[in-house]
Amino acid sequence: MVRSPANAEMMRRRKAPRTISIFGATGSVGASTADVILQRQDEFIVEVVTAKSRVAELAAVARRLGARLAVLDDPSGLAALRAALSGSGIEAAAGPAAILEAARRPVDLVVAAIVGAAGLAPTLASIEAGADIALANKECLVCAGELFMATARRHGAQILPVDSEHNAIFQALEADNVRAVEGITITASGGPFREWTAEAMRSVTIADALKHPRWTMGPKITIDSATMMNKGLEIIEAHHLFEVESSRLHVLVHPQSVVHGFVTYADGSVVAHLGAADMRIPIAHCLGWPGRGAVATPRLDLAMVGSLTFEKPDFERFPSLTLARNALETGGWATNILNAANEVAVDSFLSGAIAFLGIAATVSEVLDAAASAFGGQAVESVEAALAMDAEGRRLAREAIGRRHGVRTD
Amino acid sequence: MVRSPANAEMMRRRKAPRTISIFGATGSVGASTADVILQRQDEFIVEVVTAKSRVAELAAVARRLGARLAVLDDPSGLAALRAALSGSGIEAAAGPAAILEAARRPVDLVVAAIVGAAGLAPTLASIEAGADIALANKECLVCAGELFMATARRHGAQILPVDSEHNAIFQALEADNVRAVEGITITASGGPFREWTAEAMRSVTIADALKHPRWTMGPKITIDSATMMNKGLEIIEAHHLFEVESSRLHVLVHPQSVVHGFVTYADGSVVAHLGAADMRIPIAHCLGWPGRGAVATPRLDLAMVGSLTFEKPDFERFPSLTLARNALETGGWATNILNAANEVAVDSFLSGAIAFLGIAATVSEVLDAAASAFGGQAVESVEAALAMDAEGRRLAREAIGRRHGVRTD
Repeated sequence: MVRSPANAEMMRRRKAPRTISIFGATGSVGASTADVILQRQDEFIVEVVTAKSRVAELAAVARRLGARLAVLDDPSGLAALRAALSGSGIEAAAGPAAILEAARRPVDLVVAAIVGAAGLAPTLASIEAGADIALANKECLVCAGELFMATARRHGAQILPVDSEHNAIFQALEADNVRAVEGITITASGGPFREWTAEAMRSVTIADALKHPRWTMGPKITIDSATMMNKGLEIIEAHHLFEVESSRLHVLVHPQSVVHGFVTYADGSVVAHLGAADMRIPIAHCLGWPGRGAVATPRLDLAMVGSLTFEKPDFERFPSLTLARNALETGGWATNILNAANEVAVDSFLSGAIAFLGIAATVSEVLDAAASAFGGQAVESVEAALAMDAEGRRLAREAIGRRHGVRTD
Repeated sequence: MVRSPANAEMMRRRKAPRTISIFGATGSVGASTADVILQRQDEFIVEVVTAKSRVAELAAVARRLGARLAVLDDPSGLAALRAALSGSGIEAAAGPAAILEAARRPVDLVVAAIVGAAGLAPTLASIEAGADIALANKECLVCAGELFMATARRHGAQILPVDSEHNAIFQALEADNVRAVEGITITASGGPFREWTAEAMRSVTIADALKHPRWTMGPKITIDSATMMNKGLEIIEAHHLFEVESSRLHVLVHPQSVVHGFVTYADGSVVAHLGAADMRIPIAHCLGWPGRGAVATPRLDLAMVGSLTFEKPDFERFPSLTLARNALETGGWATNILNAANEVAVDSFLSGAIAFLGIAATVSEVLDAAASAFGGQAVESVEAALAMDAEGRRLAREAIGRRHGVRTD
C-alpha cells in the first residue's frame, strides 16, 4: 500500500492532537517513538503503552508520556505494574487478552513495535478498530502479508513503514505514479562479513557476527544482518507494502548506510531517501505523516561523510538472500516458514549449537521439509499463520537436532 | 513555486494528447525534448517550434515532430525557411514579433529553451496565454525572477524546471510540506579546477576551462561551470522557483554528478534525486508531469558507478559563488547585472581578452559600479529587465576595456 495522494482524507488525519498507542513501548522503536512524541507533545495524546515483561520500564514510559493505560503481556507482572503506577492515575492491565483488548481502543495511530509473531493479532485488531499503523513488526508482513494488507485495505488503514529502508521507499514513492515504478531498491550495509572470503565465513564466531558495522541493534537482527537474511525479509516486506513483484525489488550493498532506499521510475529518474542512521528519523516521519514536524535528530552531513559506495550483493556467500527471494516467489506459507526457521536457526547459532553457515542451511532444509505439508496453502487467518510459524519452528529444531544427532524438541 | 498537490487540477493537465510548443527547438534542450516527444508521440501535438537562425535544423525538427508552425527569430531567414518547409503543410514565420505571437498561441505546455534574455518576453507571453512552462531559460529567473514568478502565480501556470538540479529539487519537494523544508542543496561537479591550487588557477587556458569533467555543454555554460558561477545562478533560480530564502539554499561539490539535488526536511529526512547525466531525464519528467511515462534514457547503475563523493565548495578559489549569493541577497537588480556582466566577461575570456580569474573580478567590479544606478530598484517589467541587462553588459565592456586600457564599446 503506497501513500495516498494529498486530499481531504489526509487532512483529516492531520488534525491535532492525535491519539496514539505504542505496542512494544520498551524496545528500541518504543524508546525512539517516546523521544519523538516528547518533542511534539502538543500533537499527541498517548492512549496505550504495552511491554512484554519489563514492568519498571513500562511504568516509566507510561508516566513520561502521560498514557491512559499500560498493559503488560506477562500476566504475572500485574501487581508489580499496579504498584509502579500507583498515584499516577494510569490504568494497568496484563495478559495477552488485555493486550488484544487495548489494541481495540480507537486511536488515530498505532505504533506496532511488538517483536515477533505476537504482534500479529494486536496489530490486526488495531486496523479493525480504525487506526493507521506505523509498522515496525516484521511478522505482520512476512508471516501473513496478504491477510494483513487485505485487512488494511478493507478498513482503509494507512500502513506507514517504520523500518528505515521501507520508510525510505515510502518517501520516494509518488502515489500517482506507482505504475511508472521500474524498480525499488533497498540498501544493505553488507554486515560484518561483506569482505570475508567464503572460506573464512566457515569459521565465523558469535562475536564476529555480532559486530555490526553501522547500526546498534539487538542480537537477532544483528545476526540477520550478518547473514543478509534481514534484506531477504525486507524484500518480502517491500513486496507487500508497495505491491511490487519480486522481479522489480532489488538489494544493493552500501556500507555507509546513508542512502536507505530508492525508487527508479520509468523515465529514468531515481528518487532516494538519505539520512543519518537513527531510528527517530523514520519514526518522526511516520508520526508526522502526511505532514512533517521539526524533530531533533542527527542531521546528515554528506561533506562530512565524504564518500558513499555501492556494490552488488554476493548471492554465493549470502544464500539467505536467494532463500528469501525464492520463498517470496513461492508464496505466503514459504515466507512464514522461512522466518520461523530463521529465528530458530539464529537462536541456535547464538547458543553455539550450529555454525554461522548452518543458519541458511537449516532454513533451506526446513523449507524443503515444509513444502509437502504447506505447499500452495494461503495464510488466511492469524491462527493459520501462528500454526504455520509453530510448525516451522518445530521443523527447524528437528533439523538442527538431526544435524547434531540429538533431539531438541 | 513548488509542485501542486495531486488533485483535479493535476488530472486536467494529464489529459492526452496535450499540445506543446518548443521555443528554442534546435539547441540541446530542444533536441532532447524532440527525442522524448518522439518516444511518446500519442501524448503530444506539437504546435510551435522556434529557432534563432538555423533554418535547416528548424525545418527538420518541425517536420520530424509534425509541428503546425515553425518560427525563426532571424527575419532574414524567412524565405529559406519557407523553401525548407515546402510541401510539408507547416506554416513558416520569422522575426521577434512572430516569435512573440507564436508564444501567445494557446497550448498546454511550453518548453522555454531560448537562450538568453531573448527568452524572457516570449515565456511571459506563453504564461499569459495559459500554458504551463518547462523552463530551461535561466534569464526568466535571474534577470526578472520576481516579475516572472508573480506572473506565473497570477495565471496559475505551473513552472516545471528542466535544469537537472532544479528538476531534482522539484521531484524531492513535497507540496504539502514546504514549510518543513530545512534546506535545499544543489550539487556541483566542481568543474575542471576543483583540485587546482589558487596559484595554478591564475594561468588557466581557454582549453583548460573548456574541459568539463562530466557534462557536454556549450562553451558559455562550460565556463560557468569552471568558475562555478553556474551554481551561483542556480541558487538564484532555486530561490525564485521554490520560494526559499538564501540561507536555506546550499551548494555541495559532488564530482560524479549522480545526485543532482536534495531536500532536507525538519524531521531529519533527506529526499534526493539521482540519475545519469542526460538531459532527457529531467525533460521526460517535465513532459510527463504530473504522471511519468516510460522513456528510454540511460539508467543509473550505482553498483557500476561504485563511489559517490561529496565536499564543501571552496569559496576562496571560486568567488563567483559568493558574488551570486550576495547579489541574491541584495535584490533583483543585482542578479540581473551579475548575469549580464558574467556573460560579457565569459565571452571576453573565450576570446582571450581577459584571464580566467578576470571573469569574477569583472563581475564584482560591475556590481559595484551598478549599485549607484540601480540599488534598491525592482525589476517590474520586461523592458526594465532588458534595459538593466543592456546596462550591465555596457558596464562590463567598459570595465574590461579599462583593464586593457582600450575602449570596447
